[in-house]
Amino acid sequence: MQFHGSHILSVEQFGLTDLSVLFQNAAKLEPVARGELACNVLDGALLGNLFFEPSTRTRMSFDAAFCRLGGRVCDTTGFQFSSMAKGESNHDASRVISGYVDIMVVRHPQMGSVKEFADASLVPVINAGDGPGEHPSQALLDLYTMLKELKRDLTTINGLRVAMVGDLRFGRTVHSLAKLLSLFKGIHFHLVSPAELRMPADIVDFLRARGHTVKETTDLIAGVANCEVIYATRIQEERFESVDEAQRFKGSYAINRAFFDHYCDPKAILMHPLPRDNRSESCELNNDLNNHSQLAIFRQTDNGIVVRMAMFALVMGMQDQIDASLRPVGFKKKLIAV
Amino acid sequence: MQFHGSHILSVEQFGLTDLSVLFQNAAKLEPVARGELACNVLDGALLGNLFFEPSTRTRMSFDAAFCRLGGRVCDTTGFQFSSMAKGESNHDASRVISGYVDIMVVRHPQMGSVKEFADASLVPVINAGDGPGEHPSQALLDLYTMLKELKRDLTTINGLRVAMVGDLRFGRTVHSLAKLLSLFKGIHFHLVSPAELRMPADIVDFLRARGHTVKETTDLIAGVANCEVIYATRIQEERFESVDEAQRFKGSYAINRAFFDHYCDPKAILMHPLPRDNRSESCELNNDLNNHSQLAIFRQTDNGIVVRMAMFALVMGMQDQIDASLRPVGFKKKLIAV
Amino acid sequence: MQFHGSHILSVEQFGLTDLSVLFQNAAKLEPVARGELACNVLDGALLGNLFFEPSTRTRMSFDAAFCRLGGRVCDTTGFQFSSMAKGESNHDASRVISGYVDIMVVRHPQMGSVKEFADASLVPVINAGDGPGEHPSQALLDLYTMLKELKRDLTTINGLRVAMVGDLRFGRTVHSLAKLLSLFKGIHFHLVSPAELRMPADIVDFLRARGHTVKETTDLIAGVANCEVIYATRIQEERFESVDEAQRFKGSYAINRAFFDHYCDPKAILMHPLPRDNRSESCELNNDLNNHSQLAIFRQTDNGIVVRMAMFALVMGMQDQIDASLRPVGFKKKLIAV
Repeated sequence: MQFHGSHILSVEQFGLTDLSVLFQNAAKLEPVARGELACNVLDGALLGNLFFEPSTRTRMSFDAAFCRLGGRVCDTTGFQFSSMAKGESNHDASRVISGYVDIMVVRHPQMGSVKEFADASLVPVINAGDGPGEHPSQALLDLYTMLKELKRDLTTINGLRVAMVGDLRFGRTVHSLAKLLSLFKGIHFHLVSPAELRMPADIVDFLRARGHTVKETTDLIAGVANCEVIYATRIQEERFESVDEAQRFKGSYAINRAFFDHYCDPKAILMHPLPRDNRSESCELNNDLNNHSQLAIFRQTDNGIVVRMAMFALVMGMQDQIDASLRPVGFKKKLIAV
Repeated sequence: MQFHGSHILSVEQFGLTDLSVLFQNAAKLEPVARGELACNVLDGALLGNLFFEPSTRTRMSFDAAFCRLGGRVCDTTGFQFSSMAKGESNHDASRVISGYVDIMVVRHPQMGSVKEFADASLVPVINAGDGPGEHPSQALLDLYTMLKELKRDLTTINGLRVAMVGDLRFGRTVHSLAKLLSLFKGIHFHLVSPAELRMPADIVDFLRARGHTVKETTDLIAGVANCEVIYATRIQEERFESVDEAQRFKGSYAINRAFFDHYCDPKAILMHPLPRDNRSESCELNNDLNNHSQLAIFRQTDNGIVVRMAMFALVMGMQDQIDASLRPVGFKKKLIAV
Repeated sequence: MQFHGSHILSVEQFGLTDLSVLFQNAAKLEPVARGELACNVLDGALLGNLFFEPSTRTRMSFDAAFCRLGGRVCDTTGFQFSSMAKGESNHDASRVISGYVDIMVVRHPQMGSVKEFADASLVPVINAGDGPGEHPSQALLDLYTMLKELKRDLTTINGLRVAMVGDLRFGRTVHSLAKLLSLFKGIHFHLVSPAELRMPADIVDFLRARGHTVKETTDLIAGVANCEVIYATRIQEERFESVDEAQRFKGSYAINRAFFDHYCDPKAILMHPLPRDNRSESCELNNDLNNHSQLAIFRQTDNGIVVRMAMFALVMGMQDQIDASLRPVGFKKKLIAV
């Protein structure tokens, strides 16, 4: 794909070459994300960061990524675009805001809505989640994290054994990630979920048609065995017929330190799109794992910044300017020892 | 008027010389608004962007305009100023915030309230709408748009034939615009509205006293005939006795492509303060006009940025620095072909 | 204390030397806060400004302070962190955001919660109020204001006579301020409150144990007599058994111009943490004092900016760079004559 000036709406736009370009730039930007170097390739650029549903975390991640490159951000501050309540179309909202800024990030609860924004926009649009649809930057940062944690690259990730655990039916994260991993060869997918929450059949069929191995199971112990990556997701109790039903599943799929030590490959990494449900009984990845070396969930959110920085830099056509723009940061960042 | 250090509260502050200065600077800033040139005359300056009622669009327009000049923005993020719920006066809120920033933009639902903010502020205040009162920057961008679309200037706009259509009673936009147009000579106002929604008599009397022609009608076809500008507004159904009553008016005043082709001057421009009500039956300017060359509504919102940029630059005393501060932008903006 | 890289959670962290360093830097930054000089020691730095309860004023103060030093700010925009509603812990929220930014400011309704944020954060955390707990920057700006208004310094403030008036039971502001003043010698505390709203006994005992004089009274006239500082607070009617009960107290502790002229030292300064309740009958400091030279409440909020700027600069390790970074501001600020 041609990054410069393009919308980023779906993981399906990405081929291996695109991933290579994206991840090389992300790696280059890591010291900038950590506040160790400054980079101003987006000096003077303006982001319209439009979130039409609640998401502090993801909104701040895009916001921080754009600021780290020297740009400025105009945020929406409510969940509802006020003029839309008066009957305004996505077309009008998008065309108007696209005349104010240089690039837009859009999250919207309706599937397909971000495409409508893109169709009406004068500037590139990045999909930050359109309801049950796509959320491409999450899948990209997930893959980036796997490569980095496992010390693999795009040519050596073939044959990966990955367990996806939890609510595989409604979670757009695992759908996008599965599609992205299908670009490689011989991936072993262990899909661990209650029968009611299985991965949609069309995605399973697609993975098998591409030559990957898919094992579906309701048994967590069997599912995680020998996996290099265990990707946990939140059981979304609000989708169940009754809370009691949901509670039973929660019990089955909670991973704590004892479980990890007994049943998982000690070199396996634990991932999660976050937020975790940290309440007792429902915690997918227990708090007793917080200081465990294999818990990659916070390195995963850290990686979200650099992957989004790279997306911005590429879409704004600044790929060739990154190296020359790196400079010492003015302030002296001192991390807290934790 | 003296722009530097002044509050901008009403269109009545503006004379022809002021408009000339404002619009010349707005025109000069167009490449900056488009992200083609950078301008940092407000480097180090801080805007307090205070919106006490919902308005994503206008808030973002002021926000973007200030950022485009190199400034930084502190936004209010809710519709209610939390301390005001505890009994704080506009005086206190304004004086406190004015000690934090270099200029304020204020929108507030109560008429006269922005004047209260101005009276207590240490720094200039720009009125972004005080309920049914004034919204001067909207009228200014509307006039700027008319001149640009019609290739006229402040000396050749005399004699303009403009139709104002829809809810002329409650819309502060058409009130402010009518007052602003009264500065010129021999304007022909065609006021098209239901009898219940006529332009207030004091404004009509004022326009006639200034020597302008005012024709009031309920008939859209008669109203738009031979007009150079057709300024549509949303029928505000919430003001009517019954929804059925409102529906009838909506039907009468919807302009679509077929209507335009049959009844309007082909060189007429279609304007609207936005948001349009894009729902079928109620759309003042139908979606089938979206790609029509005479539909100026999005160029109108684009113009809002440069008019607000010019207001900021002038009120902050930077008029003479604009030329010298223009510089190439770092990033490479690439517009989407639409 | 070591400012660089430290959390600022409580006034109890501060000794006299720390106050001296903080206030010297605050004084140096006054022209920057007023927009007369620019300072970019935090160029490239990113603040996560997280407010989990309503507070436009304090949020904007931290926001403006960080921007004035050249930094950029990512704000939370709602009162509820959306992922927390799904069961996320303070630990997770803090660790994630701390990977996005270089420093965090946190306000949270639960006492002790900001400490939880600090414990999980990779970057320094400044407590902006944890429910009934601490709000250190408020006490620091209050002390800074007293020194400046009275033309005293940290060595000559000993023996100060200060009246604290109103709701001394629930107001965290007066608790923190009393603790901070206890660092000096021979302070005379006049605690004026209804019996039901007395200062907590442990704080009174602490002050006396440190050798200070504490006089508790319900009588405003006796309480303010001969005081150099009168620190009024809002009577929080929502805490009372009945509104009528609260109303009686409000009447007793309202200070207007006539009261000041009759009963207060003419050189006394009037302070208040704001917001005032400006409604008639309940106004702790009456609006008729607004132009009174001794009313220091707005200079107090102005001082909040410089004290917070100094906190940021010190915690980010930039103390030695401030002088060299000061430069003329680009724009020409012109204050409104009021």
